[in-house]
Amino acid sequence: MTERTELSALGEFALIERLTSSIVLQQPNSVTGVGDDAAVIAPTGQSTVVTTDMLLEGVHFDLAYTPLKHLGYKAVVVNLSDLAAMNAAPGQFTFSLAASNRFSVEALDELYAGVLAACEAYAVDLVGGDTCSSRSGLVISVTALGHASPEMLVKRSGARVNDLVCVTGDLGAAYLGLQILEREKQVFLAAPGAQPLLEGYDYILRRQLRPEARTDMRGYFSEAGLLPTSMIDISDGLASEMLHITRASGCGCRLYEEKFPLDPMTIRTAEELGLDSTTCALNGGEDYELLFTILPADFDKIKGSPHITVIGHITEEAQGNVLVTRSGAGVPLQAQGWRAF
Amino acid sequence: MTERTELSALGEFALIERLTSSIVLQQPNSVTGVGDDAAVIAPTGQSTVVTTDMLLEGVHFDLAYTPLKHLGYKAVVVNLSDLAAMNAAPGQFTFSLAASNRFSVEALDELYAGVLAACEAYAVDLVGGDTCSSRSGLVISVTALGHASPEMLVKRSGARVNDLVCVTGDLGAAYLGLQILEREKQVFLAAPGAQPLLEGYDYILRRQLRPEARTDMRGYFSEAGLLPTSMIDISDGLASEMLHITRASGCGCRLYEEKFPLDPMTIRTAEELGLDSTTCALNGGEDYELLFTILPADFDKIKGSPHITVIGHITEEAQGNVLVTRSGAGVPLQAQGWRAF
Repeated sequence: MTERTELSALGEFALIERLTSSIVLQQPNSVTGVGDDAAVIAPTGQSTVVTTDMLLEGVHFDLAYTPLKHLGYKAVVVNLSDLAAMNAAPGQFTFSLAASNRFSVEALDELYAGVLAACEAYAVDLVGGDTCSSRSGLVISVTALGHASPEMLVKRSGARVNDLVCVTGDLGAAYLGLQILEREKQVFLAAPGAQPLLEGYDYILRRQLRPEARTDMRGYFSEAGLLPTSMIDISDGLASEMLHITRASGCGCRLYEEKFPLDPMTIRTAEELGLDSTTCALNGGEDYELLFTILPADFDKIKGSPHITVIGHITEEAQGNVLVTRSGAGVPLQAQGWRAF
Repeated sequence: MTERTELSALGEFALIERLTSSIVLQQPNSVTGVGDDAAVIAPTGQSTVVTTDMLLEGVHFDLAYTPLKHLGYKAVVVNLSDLAAMNAAPGQFTFSLAASNRFSVEALDELYAGVLAACEAYAVDLVGGDTCSSRSGLVISVTALGHASPEMLVKRSGARVNDLVCVTGDLGAAYLGLQILEREKQVFLAAPGAQPLLEGYDYILRRQLRPEARTDMRGYFSEAGLLPTSMIDISDGLASEMLHITRASGCGCRLYEEKFPLDPMTIRTAEELGLDSTTCALNGGEDYELLFTILPADFDKIKGSPHITVIGHITEEAQGNVLVTRSGAGVPLQAQGWRAF
């Protein structure tokens, strides 16, 4: 039997103490973490970058198929992904939580176990937060801080004509993982005894439930002696993010469908579900890969990298944003992705 | 007639653009604000302090009597209050928002007008955030960054025996303001045509609905050549905060009821409602004043200040936390304040 301790049995301060007592600060500049009015980060001589994301039950996640430990991990990772997109080193984050009395202390233990697993995996420090009650559902808000020399930061606005457009990893898998989870949820709702058929989908399920941030690319760029001219992380789908870069940079782009990196499981699952895998890559979202541009002269520095695929190039603004399909036709690149409202 | 534009008519990106288009960055170290993967803050050579607070409709605020503009202002101010409690200069903040389709674009305009009013009043910069949909109610999460030389930061843990215990401003007013608002809400619910009787309560209503952070005290301390030995802001009530300081500092305290600074309107309203004004000061909360300790030798530096009242002194831990009542009796100081669950 699983133990269940009511949140009201502990109260706010005891709960915070329980959830945060095992934190060990790892970053040399994390001076004070949880436990005062504010956390303290020592001067680094570098720029500080700040990003924040809010996750709501029923909007961003469904607890019917999301393990709380994975949710805690993912809530941290999606913020670290934004830091990676600035080419900054992840440092610290705050983790705020609102939970209704539907959640037990043990459930929040699970959530925090995921948060602390992310701390360990990325050597980042949980330094603060807020814990309060909610009338319904679970709400999570994370704000992450990163550090970088000013000249190493990469913005969305630096892409220039003829730059190569690159992505890390592969695309569309997280979206297809979500479709499988939704399918099995519907089966379960129709016949509550049914066991979900999740075997054989490991990779795409992991991409959805427990994604990783490409904080490794910073070291890769540094070793290769390469600085992207622009960069963004892929949270809303390749199309939407590409349009953010070209709009901010005042240019157009030409992407080649045949170049899109797709995992075989992504292709197979798309076929199984009757979906177009290119559409999944363009508009699926939640890949948390990096989309970036580099100078044409830097091509030799990435050639042969198992992490990076060149998928197109930057054009004059007047040429628009174009997707060249496998048949060779040019169609306008459009963001059909996720809408928050 | 008030115009009503549905959130769905704009979509996430257009909404963010509308809400943030009038931001003008004021802090010299705010390099990049809203519009990239993360905000960028230039190196300051100082420590960075970070604090965060989450506010939920129905838990932290009631829109039946909370104007959205005041709510936006207050959401920023409660975080600046935490920065003030560290003796740090407020710098930047992120503002995240989840709203259901019950809210119109115009309603969010109002909320942001309050946020931007706080930016102006405190010369702080809104540099980022997240905007998403909620299935119910309004959720706000703010994370604020402040800056200070490491040696100027004041923690909760520095109080020592014989230090004087001081508070800024006056106490209990915000709690009584809330009681008046709740009373008038009940009257209205019983007889929907009834006009609320709010005249004559201006000060305590303002303390509840539109509090200010004591960011002014940092300059005052600096001019007086004074550094508090410990400090905290009063959000959960004097008693709870005092116990945080003595626990963190490993000491006890002796507070004198007769010294508690109370506004005449606070005393009058407490009497009217049949409440004990001392209890309101001890456990009411949301005063956003500063509670701090100073060396006895520094008394001359604060003597005669209209902002500061000495309300007691620090004792050995073994002597406990004692409240000396007006009758001269010593009773244990207890936190009965707000519980989050």
